[in-house]
Amino acid sequence: MARILILGAGVMGTALAVPAADNGHDVLLVGTHLDGAAIAAMRRPGGVHPKLDAPLPAGVDPIDFQELRPAHFEEAAFVVIGVSSPGIAWAVTQLNDLLETPKPVAFVTKGLVRDSENLTTYAQSVPPAVGRMRDFIGIGGPCIARELANRLPTASVYACADTKVATTFARLMQTTYYRLAVTDDATGVEACAALKNFFAIGVSAMQTRFIDARRGGATRNPTAGAFNQAAREMATLCDRLGGRRDTAFDLAGIGDLHVTVGGGRNSRLGHALGQGRTVSAAMSAELVGETVEGIDTAQALSAWIPAASAGKAPQRQGFPFASAIIDAVTDDAPFRFDLSGTGLF
Amino acid sequence: MARILILGAGVMGTALAVPAADNGHDVLLVGTHLDGAAIAAMRRPGGVHPKLDAPLPAGVDPIDFQELRPAHFEEAAFVVIGVSSPGIAWAVTQLNDLLETPKPVAFVTKGLVRDSENLTTYAQSVPPAVGRMRDFIGIGGPCIARELANRLPTASVYACADTKVATTFARLMQTTYYRLAVTDDATGVEACAALKNFFAIGVSAMQTRFIDARRGGATRNPTAGAFNQAAREMATLCDRLGGRRDTAFDLAGIGDLHVTVGGGRNSRLGHALGQGRTVSAAMSAELVGETVEGIDTAQALSAWIPAASAGKAPQRQGFPFASAIIDAVTDDAPFRFDLSGTGLF
Repeated sequence: MARILILGAGVMGTALAVPAADNGHDVLLVGTHLDGAAIAAMRRPGGVHPKLDAPLPAGVDPIDFQELRPAHFEEAAFVVIGVSSPGIAWAVTQLNDLLETPKPVAFVTKGLVRDSENLTTYAQSVPPAVGRMRDFIGIGGPCIARELANRLPTASVYACADTKVATTFARLMQTTYYRLAVTDDATGVEACAALKNFFAIGVSAMQTRFIDARRGGATRNPTAGAFNQAAREMATLCDRLGGRRDTAFDLAGIGDLHVTVGGGRNSRLGHALGQGRTVSAAMSAELVGETVEGIDTAQALSAWIPAASAGKAPQRQGFPFASAIIDAVTDDAPFRFDLSGTGLF
Repeated sequence: MARILILGAGVMGTALAVPAADNGHDVLLVGTHLDGAAIAAMRRPGGVHPKLDAPLPAGVDPIDFQELRPAHFEEAAFVVIGVSSPGIAWAVTQLNDLLETPKPVAFVTKGLVRDSENLTTYAQSVPPAVGRMRDFIGIGGPCIARELANRLPTASVYACADTKVATTFARLMQTTYYRLAVTDDATGVEACAALKNFFAIGVSAMQTRFIDARRGGATRNPTAGAFNQAAREMATLCDRLGGRRDTAFDLAGIGDLHVTVGGGRNSRLGHALGQGRTVSAAMSAELVGETVEGIDTAQALSAWIPAASAGKAPQRQGFPFASAIIDAVTDDAPFRFDLSGTGLF
């Protein structure tokens, strides 16, 4: 049995404690300054995370980050960073302050980092920023945290340049309800994990935008065509970001896109766009106060996908769907896409 | 402007007449002996196909097959076979009787042909059976007929070993609402078009089978994991059937699977299986009298996917999801799948 340290007691960090503890490992679940209430709730007898409503198995020890010491890292076989993307810099600081022996560190945090002309994933930007990190492991795939915490069948992928490390960690974590694949394409998994939020906005918009005028109700051809186009463009973007195309056609890409279109904040923004509303209208109404990660990705991509001409859509050659999402976000304009540009002619 | 002859006035054959006629072509829409009522309805002024409820454009001439003459074929630039799979032998007979000059023939009919040890697609089995066929064109992609007939945005792929032929036909057919890609992998498109019905049974079963026990309602991780596994296994089966893996990750594969899971007879059978019922129970209740094409594909695959051992699941090495669907169909047994066998270990 191993000790696993999870930094971040949000829904995903906490959910990962469930298969780890079910496999008999000791899990130290460390709340950030945002997780105080959740840690307090989980420390009560029979306590549950407020957003997961699943009791934690014995073997999970929830603590606040103020209690965290270098010895906790020293005892851990694997460290998992479970913070959300605004917390990644804080997590890097913790690793630099407290991690004294090089260790493999797994990340559920997703995002693209824009740095003047470059766009990179955490697989590329984080390792050089952490002094004593040994291996970067990216976690991707279709995983809604509360479903994993409730032990529903869930598939995910662990990605590390050294697949032996990913395999070792996956062996510790896999259960009958948590099925793990392994890949060496950490950059591709990280790229897809960010891109799927962005494309989910567009696919969800298509679901709402086109209705059956004669019979009422939703239609399926426009959504399926958009889902397919999202997969195509995600594969090309994944490749340009340094990952592999086939990663987009597996768990971290189409698998996670499928689950993300099914619900969540990116999907809700998409439905608002599909109703003909703008991003600012949705963000000041049903999404007020929420973080919609696909918006950040749209802004990062807007400067990075080269414009084919000075004109507007389809200005980004080869990316008609991404262009439509970027334009809706950056211009705060109605979403316009009807599969135009996806065929041969 | 060209003349296009569509043999079969079911929903798909009739729907294809809409973009063709919108592009100014003359369309001869020929009903089979099953289409008498539909042809009669469409011949009335302002007539509509009973299952499409969209008026046909001027330029579509609906006739009964008894009126069909060799001259009709002679005048056509392209022939489209729009019959369902039980009608494919009849359609081949018509082509042999009436097609006097070799022509390109496009097929929307989908199925796998089992011939002792071999399993083949229509792309392989039909051309040798037709004396004067020139090019086999397979039509695939996410296309619900009545949505196309109602001019909702739809993406499809035209496949022909000679891509110039597919491109010529696609240029005749593409409209602002019907976006066409072209590929040379006709075998792959035909394989995926049959396989997606089969896999849609399983993905739909997963949607129904796993519910959120604490909050009620559908879950998403199991369905997304199953969708992804379907894509993986479809790619491998496509390859073994003589097509290309990447065809499964595009319109004819994941695109069409996406639309098929959203509704239709294969999906309804899947939901019944997800409720713990058997195929025979569903076929004698809500699906009585219906043809569920995925059942035929399951039976064709059951002999063809090699069993890894004499035991039961996961007896078909590398195909845990296909095996679960095959077992439910061929044993008339409850559907059992929980993503087991999809991970590394």
